[in-house]
Amino acid sequence: MHNDILIINARLSKDTGTRNFLPKYLTISGRLISKIGNMADIPKNLQADKVIDATNCLVLPGLVNGHCHAAMTLFRGLADDLPLTIWLNEHIFPAEAKHVSKEMVYWCSKLAAAEMILSGTTTVADAYFFEEEAAKAFMEIGIRAVAAQGIIDFPAPGVPDASKNIQAAGAYINALPTNDLVTPALFCHSPYTCSPKTIQAAKELANEKHCKLFIHVAETKAEVENHQKTHGLSPVRHLHKLNILDNNTVCVHCVWLDAEEIDILANTGCGVITCPESNMKLASGVAPVPDMLKRRVAVGLGTDGCASNNDLDMFGEMSSLAKLHKVVNLDPTTMPAQQCLQMAGLAGAKVLGLNGIASLDVGMQADIILIDLQQVHLTPFYNADILVYAAQGSDVKSSIIGGQLVMENREILTIDVDETIAAVNRFM
Amino acid sequence: MHNDILIINARLSKDTGTRNFLPKYLTISGRLISKIGNMADIPKNLQADKVIDATNCLVLPGLVNGHCHAAMTLFRGLADDLPLTIWLNEHIFPAEAKHVSKEMVYWCSKLAAAEMILSGTTTVADAYFFEEEAAKAFMEIGIRAVAAQGIIDFPAPGVPDASKNIQAAGAYINALPTNDLVTPALFCHSPYTCSPKTIQAAKELANEKHCKLFIHVAETKAEVENHQKTHGLSPVRHLHKLNILDNNTVCVHCVWLDAEEIDILANTGCGVITCPESNMKLASGVAPVPDMLKRRVAVGLGTDGCASNNDLDMFGEMSSLAKLHKVVNLDPTTMPAQQCLQMAGLAGAKVLGLNGIASLDVGMQADIILIDLQQVHLTPFYNADILVYAAQGSDVKSSIIGGQLVMENREILTIDVDETIAAVNRFM
Repeated sequence: MHNDILIINARLSKDTGTRNFLPKYLTISGRLISKIGNMADIPKNLQADKVIDATNCLVLPGLVNGHCHAAMTLFRGLADDLPLTIWLNEHIFPAEAKHVSKEMVYWCSKLAAAEMILSGTTTVADAYFFEEEAAKAFMEIGIRAVAAQGIIDFPAPGVPDASKNIQAAGAYINALPTNDLVTPALFCHSPYTCSPKTIQAAKELANEKHCKLFIHVAETKAEVENHQKTHGLSPVRHLHKLNILDNNTVCVHCVWLDAEEIDILANTGCGVITCPESNMKLASGVAPVPDMLKRRVAVGLGTDGCASNNDLDMFGEMSSLAKLHKVVNLDPTTMPAQQCLQMAGLAGAKVLGLNGIASLDVGMQADIILIDLQQVHLTPFYNADILVYAAQGSDVKSSIIGGQLVMENREILTIDVDETIAAVNRFM
Repeated sequence: MHNDILIINARLSKDTGTRNFLPKYLTISGRLISKIGNMADIPKNLQADKVIDATNCLVLPGLVNGHCHAAMTLFRGLADDLPLTIWLNEHIFPAEAKHVSKEMVYWCSKLAAAEMILSGTTTVADAYFFEEEAAKAFMEIGIRAVAAQGIIDFPAPGVPDASKNIQAAGAYINALPTNDLVTPALFCHSPYTCSPKTIQAAKELANEKHCKLFIHVAETKAEVENHQKTHGLSPVRHLHKLNILDNNTVCVHCVWLDAEEIDILANTGCGVITCPESNMKLASGVAPVPDMLKRRVAVGLGTDGCASNNDLDMFGEMSSLAKLHKVVNLDPTTMPAQQCLQMAGLAGAKVLGLNGIASLDVGMQADIILIDLQQVHLTPFYNADILVYAAQGSDVKSSIIGGQLVMENREILTIDVDETIAAVNRFM
């Protein structure tokens, strides 16, 4: 079999403990991991188009960012530390009205994808308008993506007539070129901005197209209280009554839930993405993640967009996830590092319905990152928990996605990063 | 006047807003900032031994890490996600008993100092045993430090006879070589590990030597409850009764305080250092920082040691500080970015009694860092809040401390980093 890439002298993240560590080799053929073995047993005639020496590196599956609004990189730091309604109504909404265009979504999503690759993310679930432009940027840079077109009951970028929002979303899915990395999806903004009719039509379309439906749910206390007043039901119960919740629906945030709602999420098999840093910065609240996990709800991790986070670094997000729940529950055993890594990997992939990624095994997609361990702040190295508690996005040295080397020695190989930075700055 | 260093094309962190930005120059003569002006007005004959072009960089005062146990880098990631007593009694204390030596403190403190410089810290308040070895490492690498010798009523590294702990601390201060960067101090571990007699003797010694006294106070709820039982008073009231609290005492942590205790801290002029990431990871609790600031308590920011944090990155610490208090108080206006920057700078310096640092003005110590803004995750740049919400330690390009260029283009110039990493790894 032809090997496109051969990684040698690798320390796989499964090989924890410094003393029993046996260096491995790993081959990639096409998009897949084709062989893994000990360096001691490497075949003498093993060849590959590209050899990567992973000495001093930890080799692990790329991270899965379960929720993002990539194009919102333009609004990173535009308005911080403000009350939610002022932030949204006086800053973010006007900025979106002024700036969001096809061109803006293309360039700002490309910047976001570069930021994610540079910080170890190899798969992102994105949700915005003009999503075909985001998808185009993702294909160009070579990041794996579930790209969800926005649906909202107001005039929106690219969808000036809200009554045609479902139609526009359908057209988006139909027009998206077939691509190994990018799969389409739908994103209903929320139960407070989408009518029951819209949400149900979106779910029907998602079923018809066999794609995921994402929706923001129970992000703030006020939202839940207002929803209760308006609809006589909490958002989760409302969605459940509408028959929206199943294992192809992904509820994002889920901060304000009661025990019964957690049971509903568990019983319907619905996926959840938690975005702790966004919830912290916007002061939305602390999602009951440990309780959801106890009840076996499928929970992945996401950064949210740059208007609220303000970065797309999943290493920082894992660290905040681990530490926030410990201090809020006054329990240092809550959300151990391995669980956070799982949520930023396999568990997140499962929520997104991507079964072939986030695991270093033969036959899996070659979505692989190398972490440079020969660094002051990663010394000493006892085990992979260091990825959660001390590593930063900038420790990612190289990244392979679907068998393509997209970053090597911190240089993105697939796009012109400086051109992208310059293009985004022109939208300011 | 002779200029040792000339920085050109600088965007000072005070110059927020991209549109009104006028590039500056800045000269350093000896240890001090000697001139600041607009590039448009730069004298034609201005010369310097070293010219640093700060194009695309934000130039700001180096950060002040108000609390650290530098030598504990060796225990980074040794034991995570454990209940406090198991973590301490079964992992950290035995590891300290086994590993702490003069040589260990020297090398592991040097590693810590390198990590801090690489992430933008130019001043650290350290507290450990064999502190003369930490001080030696700090002088060698050229980081500004308040180096506090540990005092505890148990046998300790270098102080096997606890009855001689004050005597040993006095000898440490007397023996410390005079140095522009490193000043000595004392560190009573806590009111639960130091008797009233020890604490009072330490304070007398601190007064005699005109140095700061640091002490861990009210870190956990259990500590406060036990203290109440044992002494009939909370830790802060106990220290107040012992006449320990004044503006030369620094109380570290202060997580579990009531309103009256905050008033005591405010009225005595006592300094406080908060360590949010350590308090989060160990699940100690959330310090009432916004309340302390409202009552005008002087509060600085610290990372704590690597056994509990597990890194020494003040950028991450600022971000956690800003976001933790927002979510816990459900108020996004709490702890705005500028206040966090202040606490990691001037306010922290004030707590440590260092008046000539943490401000880019003529006559101030030249403790200066350059942040490389030409990066994906720092695009676009609206204002300096980005330092709190998106920047990472690894964005610091160069660092000058007391007029000495200690890091340039991410290379530490004063010590051999690989030798230090190798030395620390030998202690594992």
